[in-house]
Amino acid sequence: MNIRTTAYDDLMAFQRQTEALGQVAGRLDWDRETTMPRGAAAQRAEECGAMEAVLHARRTDTRLGDWLEEAAPGDDVGRANVRLIKRSFVRNSKIPARLAEELARVTSASQGVWAEARATNDVAAFLPSLKQVIDLRREEAACLAQGGDLYDALIADYEPGATAASLGDMFDRMRPRLVALRGAVLDADYQPEAMEGRFDAEGQMKVARELATAFGYDWDRGRLDFSVHPFSSGSGSDARITTRVVESDPFNCFYSTVHEVGHACYELGIDPSYALTPLGAGVSMGVHESQSRIYENQLGRSRAFTGWLMGRMRAQFTDFIAKDADAFYGTVNKVRAGYIRTEADEVQYNLHVMLRFDLERALVSGDLLVGDLEAAWNDRFKADFGFGVDKPSNGMLQDVHWSVGLFGYFPTYSLGNLYAGCLNQAMRAAVPGLDKALAAGDTSGATGWLRENVQTHGGLHTPVEVITRACGFAPHEGPLLDYLEEKFRGIYKL
Amino acid sequence: MNIRTTAYDDLMAFQRQTEALGQVAGRLDWDRETTMPRGAAAQRAEECGAMEAVLHARRTDTRLGDWLEEAAPGDDVGRANVRLIKRSFVRNSKIPARLAEELARVTSASQGVWAEARATNDVAAFLPSLKQVIDLRREEAACLAQGGDLYDALIADYEPGATAASLGDMFDRMRPRLVALRGAVLDADYQPEAMEGRFDAEGQMKVARELATAFGYDWDRGRLDFSVHPFSSGSGSDARITTRVVESDPFNCFYSTVHEVGHACYELGIDPSYALTPLGAGVSMGVHESQSRIYENQLGRSRAFTGWLMGRMRAQFTDFIAKDADAFYGTVNKVRAGYIRTEADEVQYNLHVMLRFDLERALVSGDLLVGDLEAAWNDRFKADFGFGVDKPSNGMLQDVHWSVGLFGYFPTYSLGNLYAGCLNQAMRAAVPGLDKALAAGDTSGATGWLRENVQTHGGLHTPVEVITRACGFAPHEGPLLDYLEEKFRGIYKL
Repeated sequence: MNIRTTAYDDLMAFQRQTEALGQVAGRLDWDRETTMPRGAAAQRAEECGAMEAVLHARRTDTRLGDWLEEAAPGDDVGRANVRLIKRSFVRNSKIPARLAEELARVTSASQGVWAEARATNDVAAFLPSLKQVIDLRREEAACLAQGGDLYDALIADYEPGATAASLGDMFDRMRPRLVALRGAVLDADYQPEAMEGRFDAEGQMKVARELATAFGYDWDRGRLDFSVHPFSSGSGSDARITTRVVESDPFNCFYSTVHEVGHACYELGIDPSYALTPLGAGVSMGVHESQSRIYENQLGRSRAFTGWLMGRMRAQFTDFIAKDADAFYGTVNKVRAGYIRTEADEVQYNLHVMLRFDLERALVSGDLLVGDLEAAWNDRFKADFGFGVDKPSNGMLQDVHWSVGLFGYFPTYSLGNLYAGCLNQAMRAAVPGLDKALAAGDTSGATGWLRENVQTHGGLHTPVEVITRACGFAPHEGPLLDYLEEKFRGIYKL
Repeated sequence: MNIRTTAYDDLMAFQRQTEALGQVAGRLDWDRETTMPRGAAAQRAEECGAMEAVLHARRTDTRLGDWLEEAAPGDDVGRANVRLIKRSFVRNSKIPARLAEELARVTSASQGVWAEARATNDVAAFLPSLKQVIDLRREEAACLAQGGDLYDALIADYEPGATAASLGDMFDRMRPRLVALRGAVLDADYQPEAMEGRFDAEGQMKVARELATAFGYDWDRGRLDFSVHPFSSGSGSDARITTRVVESDPFNCFYSTVHEVGHACYELGIDPSYALTPLGAGVSMGVHESQSRIYENQLGRSRAFTGWLMGRMRAQFTDFIAKDADAFYGTVNKVRAGYIRTEADEVQYNLHVMLRFDLERALVSGDLLVGDLEAAWNDRFKADFGFGVDKPSNGMLQDVHWSVGLFGYFPTYSLGNLYAGCLNQAMRAAVPGLDKALAAGDTSGATGWLRENVQTHGGLHTPVEVITRACGFAPHEGPLLDYLEEKFRGIYKL
């Protein structure tokens, strides 16, 4: 046998190993958040640093440059692969190996420092780590931006094509209608009842598993564990999720689970022939979030589906007394004062993101110093939400993101909401009888449409392209805001 | 700052990353056996192959040759590091990269095939994988042996300094006294009672955790999970163990746990300054097994310690009725017909190993073909143990080892027993009041002596050296056989 390989074949064989190693690095992160013994944190940081050094060397291997120049694939898949490998090669080649490794090592260690600081509400214990992370990310951004905007350079890691300016415009357009809607529902005469009672952890996890199954999560290629901050992890045939349990707030567990199921189903829904290639993972964080949010909100928090959930809760928790399904729907979607982004209702969620977006832009530009962050957070929170932060774990220590260097990531949450609004409009038009199925706990019509129109494509199209192709129109904030106004005016009888 | 690094510094900096990556590869194996979703096996095999390719490239990096030539460390630690890195470099440089990667990939996949075949007692389903693994290991051995004995070349991976001839001699010397002892106890008038009853999994795991704690397992640097085949994994500050639960046989869970605690405590007991260097792991499988076996048997199955265990079981299992502590000691150590090596008593254990040693030598030499293995196993088992194998999961499918390519590994179990016998003799002489402490569940005198005299040294000395230094005499089988004869003649009132 004497097969002459092409430059494209060589490129893809090399890339396949890089992708496999990327999965290994991701598994290390999963392990750190779920199963790693506490005392292993320092060693783990070195392990992560060593993996990043290997990955960085491969992503900047000079042979890539040669293969990329010669490769001439004849189809869309091949061209998309070349485009994505090239983007990674050009981008990573700007970052010194020493910096890439140091970032991996420092952020792995910093994550543990944050978790400890959050548990003890000790901002001062976290600040040195945070400063180190920001300094390294600023240094990385400077390498990437080459004179351009530092924050834009970081966004490109999560949402290729987006800029601080475009996202700022999006927020400017969203903010007035969201603030007005929040004011209207908080002032409304009718207020849904809050959830009361305690719900044992075992029962919550049983319902969480039922929810994951109802949304089509493939247990043969995934698993559900606990972590401080719920997340999903992995691509191809190993896409795991985590959740958390608060006995007084079962919706925290349930909707965290459904949210992460949305992320994992995106990964598991990608065309299997793309596995371990650049097309074999979600195309951007914004599109990723569109899947998690549409599973969680437009489907999971719909009137139809919450009716089914109420039945599951009645079956599981014998002393759970739900009145009628309309009231339960109001309880699930109740808008109220709260500190925590991940627990926020759909109306206020994007206001939490705007706060982070502005603060992290200032951190990255250097306009805001780490030592002033807590005060800046607390001032801004008071201004935006009308009440003060009571403790740092409800304030600037609540999110894991900054500790692991994710600057530029937060705005993709709102972009994901915007995309979810668009997809919901298109999906509702395309899938008949959706609410009837949801009322029976059957999400297959919806998730099937999403798999076919979004998930299966993986990295084949650009983020805006994949949403545009699925919806038949270019994404904009209108559908999301229309949906929110209709939904919440209905619930609050306005 | 302008520090001129030496060749030794460069060597050790490079090696440190390799060691960290080796830990990552080990964690992948841990994950596969404990937490990985079933459907991820094929992808995991690629991930393992990619990691092995990276590791092999580093272990054979030509810069190592240059650094090793120039490095001139001034102390024993430095010289030991150079010796171990050189051995690895020379050895790995004989193995083509393609073969190293293929071995990792094939054994990762084969392990899953074995687990499935074992669960369904389907030998035929396993044979093609086994043949593939043996062919690859034979190919590897041929590269390493360069005309010498293939099996010797494989042993060197697990027990540097040992050979098939030296191990064969050891077995020849052990066999007659073990066979005679077995005959005597099985024919004895007094026979200890067998364990009866059912012991719930939760209760077993509670006692298992108490046992691990009693033997000094550091939960801050480890964790306990379930797997089909108990194992320990990891070095430095992350040394995990697994166990299994059989409701009718609590000793299976308890002594598997203590055994793996012995392995993990060896790793965790190594001088922390050796972490992520070649000295930062157990020096050989034989010495490793000496620690697991002395924890499990000479300490854990002693009259003194079983008295304490009986109390813990009484506290945990309310319907557990133990007569007196002497009878319980007999029950724990009862010698009886059994198929399974890992469940065998101390008298018969090494007979199980001898069977495997002879069969795998024949497989590696080519004298025994894979298709004839089941018949050969069953014939030999009948001859050695006096009764026939009832099903493959009790026969040639019982152990994971061959599926993952561990040929040459089994004899190190018996070598470990031999070492444990020597260490026990020396430890008993050195630690006064040991039985009194063990009777109170306090193992610290024993485990402290082992840590100080064996564990702390990691890879500093050769296997035979470390045992000789600890004991004050060169290791031989006498102390083990004397100990077994005294112990079992006592229990069986001979």
